[in-house]
Amino acid sequence: MLKNRKKIRVEWGDCDPARVVFYPRYFAYFDACTHSLFERAGLSRRNMQEKYQIVGIPLVEVRARFMAPSQFGEEIVVESCVGAFRNRSFQVQHKLYKGEKLAVEAFEIRVLAVQSADDPDKVTARPIPPDVIKRFQKP
Amino acid sequence: MLKNRKKIRVEWGDCDPARVVFYPRYFAYFDACTHSLFERAGLSRRNMQEKYQIVGIPLVEVRARFMAPSQFGEEIVVESCVGAFRNRSFQVQHKLYKGEKLAVEAFEIRVLAVQSADDPDKVTARPIPPDVIKRFQKP
Amino acid sequence: MLKNRKKIRVEWGDCDPARVVFYPRYFAYFDACTHSLFERAGLSRRNMQEKYQIVGIPLVEVRARFMAPSQFGEEIVVESCVGAFRNRSFQVQHKLYKGEKLAVEAFEIRVLAVQSADDPDKVTARPIPPDVIKRFQKP
Amino acid sequence: MLKNRKKIRVEWGDCDPARVVFYPRYFAYFDACTHSLFERAGLSRRNMQEKYQIVGIPLVEVRARFMAPSQFGEEIVVESCVGAFRNRSFQVQHKLYKGEKLAVEAFEIRVLAVQSADDPDKVTARPIPPDVIKRFQKP
Repeated sequence: MLKNRKKIRVEWGDCDPARVVFYPRYFAYFDACTHSLFERAGLSRRNMQEKYQIVGIPLVEVRARFMAPSQFGEEIVVESCVGAFRNRSFQVQHKLYKGEKLAVEAFEIRVLAVQSADDPDKVTARPIPPDVIKRFQKP
Repeated sequence: MLKNRKKIRVEWGDCDPARVVFYPRYFAYFDACTHSLFERAGLSRRNMQEKYQIVGIPLVEVRARFMAPSQFGEEIVVESCVGAFRNRSFQVQHKLYKGEKLAVEAFEIRVLAVQSADDPDKVTARPIPPDVIKRFQKP
Repeated sequence: MLKNRKKIRVEWGDCDPARVVFYPRYFAYFDACTHSLFERAGLSRRNMQEKYQIVGIPLVEVRARFMAPSQFGEEIVVESCVGAFRNRSFQVQHKLYKGEKLAVEAFEIRVLAVQSADDPDKVTARPIPPDVIKRFQKP
Repeated sequence: MLKNRKKIRVEWGDCDPARVVFYPRYFAYFDACTHSLFERAGLSRRNMQEKYQIVGIPLVEVRARFMAPSQFGEEIVVESCVGAFRNRSFQVQHKLYKGEKLAVEAFEIRVLAVQSADDPDKVTARPIPPDVIKRFQKP
């Protein structure tokens, strides 16, 4: 299974008056990690559009557990992979580590959006191409 | 049950190149809504600290479903309430509406943090005071 | 001169571990205020595009002075107006008040961007239409 | 003169519907670069507090020029240094490069804040210690 590891430095502006990461900022980290994972799989935005007419990978569901806070200046690592594919959606898993310790865990359900045939201003979820699935199964 | 309604205007900087709200920004909205709900319950940060030694209401879990995107300039409304209390945690529910349409739904599990007796640099979750529960049950 | 006044509540996530607004967030406030000012002048993004082919109002320069910090929960007011027009640029002034006290002052230089004739992927600054200037001079 | 170079990847969530970096995000980059520069000078927040009772380095003024936009996925480099010291303030210069091209330039005026003797809830700007100046003059 293809994994992406991204090092992130917790910046001053990521933290709130409780001196820990403001929780929405974790999702900004995870969104960036999903993009990095897709690029590692050879699926840059441009590639996805040209090969599969995919205009975006919007989120339909997300959940996260916060086990330990992070503070300004810490170096954290996020490990990301696609955990499961369904017909028209897939789950991206993110594990955020502080050293050895798992501090946050998140699961995003996303779809591959293409322009709707009926209304070019709308998008619709297309079936996941088998070739896309293969790209995330490679080690 | 105590409900808070907060009107939010989707700002240009809340949106991403797909021209819709960047999903972490929804959680910034929800965090602000939780704070507003607590204030409506008479639980400003100062009050919580003075009455119950509560130093914060950190998140331990969150999940959300995204049913419709929002765009720059839209006026949305978030309805928030505390859906359930357990011994040391509680669930805040947020429903984000575009007009009549439910567009995003989120559930935050939070705790009432007090300074740890053992280590003043750490926090621990205290039991929910019955008086706090009552404040959220009032209409 | 057309003025816009926008009330803003300082949210928890706008503040940093020093317990004051993280300075980049002020610019997010100001950007939102510029958009509100333009709408008050009848210049929504749609209108600008339809009437003047304007695709955006990008910033080319900004400066700001920070005289007093703001904290979580404060209600601030930003007064905005267009201070000056040059041939192809204009200056938006923002004054952020805490009660009577001027806390932050900012000056944005922006342009009216239209698609470049040579390269549709680029934008270029167009001369300010006299009709646009009039809209900001009305009281 | 001490210089810090920081590579930054422009993330999806840093960009707005015009498909370019939302300008307040540049200041988040620059704030992070100032912190990195200070750490390179041996002035972590902890060090500053212990050695000089400095509780923060708040901004009092900033200006920036935006010469070229940046887009999602670009790798940019920010070069930062302290350009000048006055008695109680100093100027941090940031140059943001896309390849060889200077795309954004910013100048922050900051102070070294210590707790006010009169009011422990307030801060005041202390004179810059000569030892601090020396740290930024080293190559």
